[in-house]
Amino acid sequence: MPDPLDDRALAQLFHEARSYNSWLDRDVTDEQISAIYDLMKMGPTSANQQPARLVWCKSPEAKERLAQHAGEKNRPKITGAPVCVIIGMDLDFHEQLPWLFPHTDARSWFTGSEELRKANAFRNSSLQGAYLMLATRALGLDCGPMSGFDNAAVDAEFFADQPNVRSNFICSIGYGDPASIFGRSPRPEFDRFNRVL
Amino acid sequence: MPDPLDDRALAQLFHEARSYNSWLDRDVTDEQISAIYDLMKMGPTSANQQPARLVWCKSPEAKERLAQHAGEKNRPKITGAPVCVIIGMDLDFHEQLPWLFPHTDARSWFTGSEELRKANAFRNSSLQGAYLMLATRALGLDCGPMSGFDNAAVDAEFFADQPNVRSNFICSIGYGDPASIFGRSPRPEFDRFNRVL
Repeated sequence: MPDPLDDRALAQLFHEARSYNSWLDRDVTDEQISAIYDLMKMGPTSANQQPARLVWCKSPEAKERLAQHAGEKNRPKITGAPVCVIIGMDLDFHEQLPWLFPHTDARSWFTGSEELRKANAFRNSSLQGAYLMLATRALGLDCGPMSGFDNAAVDAEFFADQPNVRSNFICSIGYGDPASIFGRSPRPEFDRFNRVL
Repeated sequence: MPDPLDDRALAQLFHEARSYNSWLDRDVTDEQISAIYDLMKMGPTSANQQPARLVWCKSPEAKERLAQHAGEKNRPKITGAPVCVIIGMDLDFHEQLPWLFPHTDARSWFTGSEELRKANAFRNSSLQGAYLMLATRALGLDCGPMSGFDNAAVDAEFFADQPNVRSNFICSIGYGDPASIFGRSPRPEFDRFNRVL
């Protein structure tokens, strides 16, 4: 049974990590992008669905294509970042289950209900988005997640050839500029949103 | 700019962590439950929505009340765990935004659209569920997440007095029994589900 992580690690992942709005002039490499995914994909998803489909917008052109569909305040948070990743979700994730979850016929659990597939894709790709953010922080980088964009327009722009894939949220990644953030928003006391029965 | 976490920490969070089906006979304390929440609540949610509402089923009675609404194979994974937490989501999370996100009128962004509230509550409570799992692992404990249960029945059982709260998923927590798991399911190569533009 492992010990708790040390305070420095907990600070890096949770207590001192912040969502950034602007970014230092320092690249994120393809190797770092791969390393983020290699951690993220280890996180649990229901029946190993792995529904997240990721588009890493790294070139100025790709970031502009994404930013044009974002809310005005979010545009510079995209174009000014070393990379902004679109966390998409495959509504036909079940077609991959024969190899992702090979020991039983999990595909058949989802063939009958589009509603069930949508709920599973949304829940599990959101979990994967959270793993991505914590993986990013674990590797010494910072995040800036956003959901203020036109999902349908982003889907048409980036997933036109994959109509089964929909955008969930987006996340800028890089080295955050400490000058771009304000005080942290308040966090709830345990008793407000928790019950122990 | 922090360094990457060391290999031991990355193993504990990602590479060697597993979802467990049964549990060693060792308690999870109320202090550990509080510590999990104190990490989890630091994770980012859109406009600090914090929509997760948690019910920690710790007594045998509470675990039985939950297990009766789960799929048959999931029942012993609940009753045999030291604690099983219901990750609920508040569809009226926006009513809390005046104190959770005090510097602007974020509440008004959500008053007009129940659909927008539902999508935000589902996405952000799922993110928080992932933070909960990684916080649990960071503290040296193990997880066993499940979505195979009757959500409406669980809502009636545990959230009858809060009709604005719906169950998202559930997660057993404790010290996993290594004898209860099999080989890890395969993980995708980077190129399968990623594009860099």
